[in-house]
Amino acid sequence: MSVCIGIDLGGTNIAVGIVDEAGNILCKGSTPTRMPRPYGPIIEDMARITLEVLAASPYTLDDVTAIGVGVPGVADPVTGIIPFCTNLAWHDVPFRETFQRYINKPLFIDNDATVAGFAEYAAGVSAGTQSSVFLTLGTGLGGGIIIDGKPYSGNHFVGSEIGHIILQMDGELCTCGMRGCFERYASATALIREGRKALAAHPDSLMGTLCGQNPERISAKTVIDAAKQGDPTAAEVFASYAKALATGIVSIINFIDPEVVVLGGGVSLAGEFLADAVRKALKPMVFFKSLPYAEIKLAQLGPDAGIIGAAMLGKPQ
Amino acid sequence: MSVCIGIDLGGTNIAVGIVDEAGNILCKGSTPTRMPRPYGPIIEDMARITLEVLAASPYTLDDVTAIGVGVPGVADPVTGIIPFCTNLAWHDVPFRETFQRYINKPLFIDNDATVAGFAEYAAGVSAGTQSSVFLTLGTGLGGGIIIDGKPYSGNHFVGSEIGHIILQMDGELCTCGMRGCFERYASATALIREGRKALAAHPDSLMGTLCGQNPERISAKTVIDAAKQGDPTAAEVFASYAKALATGIVSIINFIDPEVVVLGGGVSLAGEFLADAVRKALKPMVFFKSLPYAEIKLAQLGPDAGIIGAAMLGKPQ
Repeated sequence: MSVCIGIDLGGTNIAVGIVDEAGNILCKGSTPTRMPRPYGPIIEDMARITLEVLAASPYTLDDVTAIGVGVPGVADPVTGIIPFCTNLAWHDVPFRETFQRYINKPLFIDNDATVAGFAEYAAGVSAGTQSSVFLTLGTGLGGGIIIDGKPYSGNHFVGSEIGHIILQMDGELCTCGMRGCFERYASATALIREGRKALAAHPDSLMGTLCGQNPERISAKTVIDAAKQGDPTAAEVFASYAKALATGIVSIINFIDPEVVVLGGGVSLAGEFLADAVRKALKPMVFFKSLPYAEIKLAQLGPDAGIIGAAMLGKPQ
Repeated sequence: MSVCIGIDLGGTNIAVGIVDEAGNILCKGSTPTRMPRPYGPIIEDMARITLEVLAASPYTLDDVTAIGVGVPGVADPVTGIIPFCTNLAWHDVPFRETFQRYINKPLFIDNDATVAGFAEYAAGVSAGTQSSVFLTLGTGLGGGIIIDGKPYSGNHFVGSEIGHIILQMDGELCTCGMRGCFERYASATALIREGRKALAAHPDSLMGTLCGQNPERISAKTVIDAAKQGDPTAAEVFASYAKALATGIVSIINFIDPEVVVLGGGVSLAGEFLADAVRKALKPMVFFKSLPYAEIKLAQLGPDAGIIGAAMLGKPQ
């Protein structure tokens, strides 16, 4: 049976899965990334855990048609080189060449958020669409673009950094050094920051009870749960958040008009409560009000999207 | 000899050209659009002027392989229907079907800014690139996206409205009803508005002399000329303009990372003075500062881009 290997390379863990052609994970395993250390031993560990997962499975290397890897940075899918990876401190790493010294199979690489978006296209909520934009709403805001059924990272592979499109010229300072980036307003971090501010101004908010009166313990879930229960302070924070997210989605729609926008990452666990708020905020803001535009959908695959999407990079087209 | 016909349908004029495969205009003509009137007579006039231009040329209808049309609105290249065209008050116009009653040739349609961007790709400054984004800096701000050598208008054909990506959440009110659209800050209209404001605050500015002390006569050229001559008030207005334009380009680069961004339209007549200011403002703002990103170039084809790009839509691939 033909299978693909998907590897999700993160700053904390390396997760590996054996994936069938429909995008089902058949077996998986993981090993710590153990930063900081040079790229050589990390890539060696990626190969080692791959062979271990295979050894513990009913499959052999002969069953594997290709290996795909999602990396937390910029990946050149053509040369297999990784020009830049902040969290791993990688710079111009000859990834494919190095990995293939251990396992000589066709190897595909792409950015991790792109890979997660590709998973939703290949086996999730955006299956069957022509184009989609995937947003991962977590500590930051990552983006994955699919155009004509292919992952799209741009000409220099520095695109799909959707968290860093500008929502507010000269706005909030971003970790990237720029001001007003989308992720300053629409990541989980933004929701938490605004939740804390609002609790300080309204100490009677339900958010206070939910976090044990310790603002440090406010999470995205705290704000969402309080808003769902009708707490007016949390509801206002959540509505502002949904509006900022919808405003960024207006830019996405007016720019590349995808068939679907998929909401993933931690904040998307708010489910239809989030998707509905975004749809409602979006409607009066789109440019062509009488014409069809992208549907807003929730991601389906959760954290496994990294493994599934990576594996699907290597699926024969 | 095989030629294509390019038709640039505007709110004021219909311009037609016979174009060779290299993108050279061999003959051209035009007729007024004469709004307001229904779509039927306009399309009939488009066919009539096409036949007149052909009759006055050394070519016959037999030489024409295809006809391409750029329309000031939303065009569905697949069905040949025009769902929406504000300036012409068109709604769901069966364009291809109607036009082919007069001239039965393969007919291609797309949005006018997209077509102008495609012209620069097919026969202008972005020739030979894989992907480009064209910006027309005029009364509004139009956009044309080329990906993998093909015009890209999105899934519902409502994309590439780059003038309406959001630069400033809750910012200046736009003619589209939304606030903070890119074109409020980076169109010729924005440059004029800010020039007028600055002249009112600094009546001694060279802009006053150049406009005969009549602020109503300030054009984009007035601000640019005064800035070029070192007038500090105009220089500040121009620098702010270039910064806003560069900020929108940051969103473009961080989103789809094109190979080239092409500056066209009236403001681009400022030439390298504009391009250099944009490059300088852009450099500290891009996300990956050590990696290559889009070159900023000036459009080459001027107002003929509409005819050339439309004709090139029909060029055999």
